[in-house]
Amino acid sequence: MAKRLIPTFNRVLVEKIIPPSKTTAGILLPEKSSKLNSGKVVAVGPGMRDKVGNLIPVGVNEGDTVLLPDYGGTQVKLADKEYHLYMDDDILGTLHD
Amino acid sequence: MAKRLIPTFNRVLVEKIIPPSKTTAGILLPEKSSKLNSGKVVAVGPGMRDKVGNLIPVGVNEGDTVLLPDYGGTQVKLADKEYHLYMDDDILGTLHD
Amino acid sequence: MAKRLIPTFNRVLVEKIIPPSKTTAGILLPEKSSKLNSGKVVAVGPGMRDKVGNLIPVGVNEGDTVLLPDYGGTQVKLADKEYHLYMDDDILGTLHD
Amino acid sequence: MAKRLIPTFNRVLVEKIIPPSKTTAGILLPEKSSKLNSGKVVAVGPGMRDKVGNLIPVGVNEGDTVLLPDYGGTQVKLADKEYHLYMDDDILGTLHD
Amino acid sequence: MAKRLIPTFNRVLVEKIIPPSKTTAGILLPEKSSKLNSGKVVAVGPGMRDKVGNLIPVGVNEGDTVLLPDYGGTQVKLADKEYHLYMDDDILGTLHD
Amino acid sequence: MAKRLIPTFNRVLVEKIIPPSKTTAGILLPEKSSKLNSGKVVAVGPGMRDKVGNLIPVGVNEGDTVLLPDYGGTQVKLADKEYHLYMDDDILGTLHD
Amino acid sequence: MAKRLIPTFNRVLVEKIIPPSKTTAGILLPEKSSKLNSGKVVAVGPGMRDKVGNLIPVGVNEGDTVLLPDYGGTQVKLADKEYHLYMDDDILGTLHD
Repeated sequence: MAKRLIPTFNRVLVEKIIPPSKTTAGILLPEKSSKLNSGKVVAVGPGMRDKVGNLIPVGVNEGDTVLLPDYGGTQVKLADKEYHLYMDDDILGTLHD
Repeated sequence: MAKRLIPTFNRVLVEKIIPPSKTTAGILLPEKSSKLNSGKVVAVGPGMRDKVGNLIPVGVNEGDTVLLPDYGGTQVKLADKEYHLYMDDDILGTLHD
Repeated sequence: MAKRLIPTFNRVLVEKIIPPSKTTAGILLPEKSSKLNSGKVVAVGPGMRDKVGNLIPVGVNEGDTVLLPDYGGTQVKLADKEYHLYMDDDILGTLHD
Repeated sequence: MAKRLIPTFNRVLVEKIIPPSKTTAGILLPEKSSKLNSGKVVAVGPGMRDKVGNLIPVGVNEGDTVLLPDYGGTQVKLADKEYHLYMDDDILGTLHD
Repeated sequence: MAKRLIPTFNRVLVEKIIPPSKTTAGILLPEKSSKLNSGKVVAVGPGMRDKVGNLIPVGVNEGDTVLLPDYGGTQVKLADKEYHLYMDDDILGTLHD
Repeated sequence: MAKRLIPTFNRVLVEKIIPPSKTTAGILLPEKSSKLNSGKVVAVGPGMRDKVGNLIPVGVNEGDTVLLPDYGGTQVKLADKEYHLYMDDDILGTLHD
Repeated sequence: MAKRLIPTFNRVLVEKIIPPSKTTAGILLPEKSSKLNSGKVVAVGPGMRDKVGNLIPVGVNEGDTVLLPDYGGTQVKLADKEYHLYMDDDILGTLHD
């Protein structure tokens, strides 16, 4: 069951980042630091075609850390791990340190 | 009644994969391994025309193993076997080992 | 009243195939063999124009056996025979032996 | 008040054909022969412009006998006679003997 | 307050024609002769731009007698006289003697 | 707080004209003369892009007296003065003496 | 958690300006001076593609003071600071002194 998914069109497969609720030293983190709904892009589709047939590449790349909308996305379970599929224009932005 | 269906436009004919509920050795599989709603593409349409008349080929190919949405699709019975028709842009992705 | 209808644009005139409920020898057929909602294309329109004015021919041809959606279509009675009109993109596929 | 109407854009002016309920010899016709909702095209508009400004002529011609949808159309009274206006793509087809 | 209005885009300024309820000789007209909802075009906009930026002129001209839809239009009072504004594609046709 | 607003895209900033309810000599005006919902254009956006990327300039100009729709528009307060923002295609026309 | 967000497509990241409720000298400001819903643009996306594949740059720039609609926008918390994401065409205008 260890399947790999290649999304269609402008779909993006994302592994959500679950923020730690305590630090590695064991200190509990306050609730507000866990608010960001983010994820790691693990696969992107080939892109959508525009109205004259050209392929528009997906707006994010594999490996990007992305900010996700609070609603939407399709839950997918691959090899017992949970992922989410989004259209690339539903992704709000990319996160950088 | 052993008819063959060629889908129109960007439609895709899919035979759903019903995951085994126990292994070939007879061991019952836990419920979570049977979650993936997938199928085998048995026929694809010729594609849709874009707004300037060019034919956009269907986004998946015959023989592809595809991830299907939980809702949608039209059930079709051909030669006593059950299939489903999807628009190619409703198919979530292709599955690879 | 024996009129002939030429559909407009991308419309398709279909004569539905009513599956026999018993064989020619009089044996009653089980219910499942009558499930397929199919028809014969008796006339097609000249096609629709795309956004730059080119004519896109209809996606099915006269004489095709087609798979029809369960809902939709407009009933038309011509010369005491019942037909149905569909837009070509509502037709699910063509059936071949 | 004997005005003539030239429809705008892709509009079509139709005079509905009311099927006779008895023959000229006075024999009452069965109800099923009066089912067809048809009309005669008395005027057509100059056509609609496509998205790049070209004029797309109306899909039916003056003098055509047309099959009309059961719903829709705008009733117009000109010189005490009743007509109906349709968009050309609401007209289902042309009828020929 | 004697202002003149130049409509924007594809808007058309119309002065409705109120049909006389009696002839000039004082004879009352039957109700059916007053059914037509028509008007005189007093001003037209410069037109709308199509999807590639070309100006599409308005489909009716100043001075035209037009057939109006029963609903829609925006009432405007200019110099104590009542007018109505319509999009040109809401106007049903032009009336000629 | 004396800020100046430059509207985005095809937005238009309008200062509504409140008709006087009495003349400068103090004579009360009848209600019907105050019916026109008009305003002065104080700023316009750079325009919208059409589907092929060309900039379509706004349909009205700074300084124009415009006829406004009865509903819609966004109220904005700048330097204690009240303005309204409209999309240019919501403006009904320009008023001239 | 000091992440930086680069918005996707035509999205704009805005830090809302909370108007002071009293002056630096401690004088309470009247309520009407705090009405304007404005913000500072802190990041913009690369732009949207039009229907023929060209990139349309975002309509506002980093550093702009913008007028925001009363509704809409997605709240985002980055490094314990609150921001809002808007599509560029939801932003009403830019504010200048």
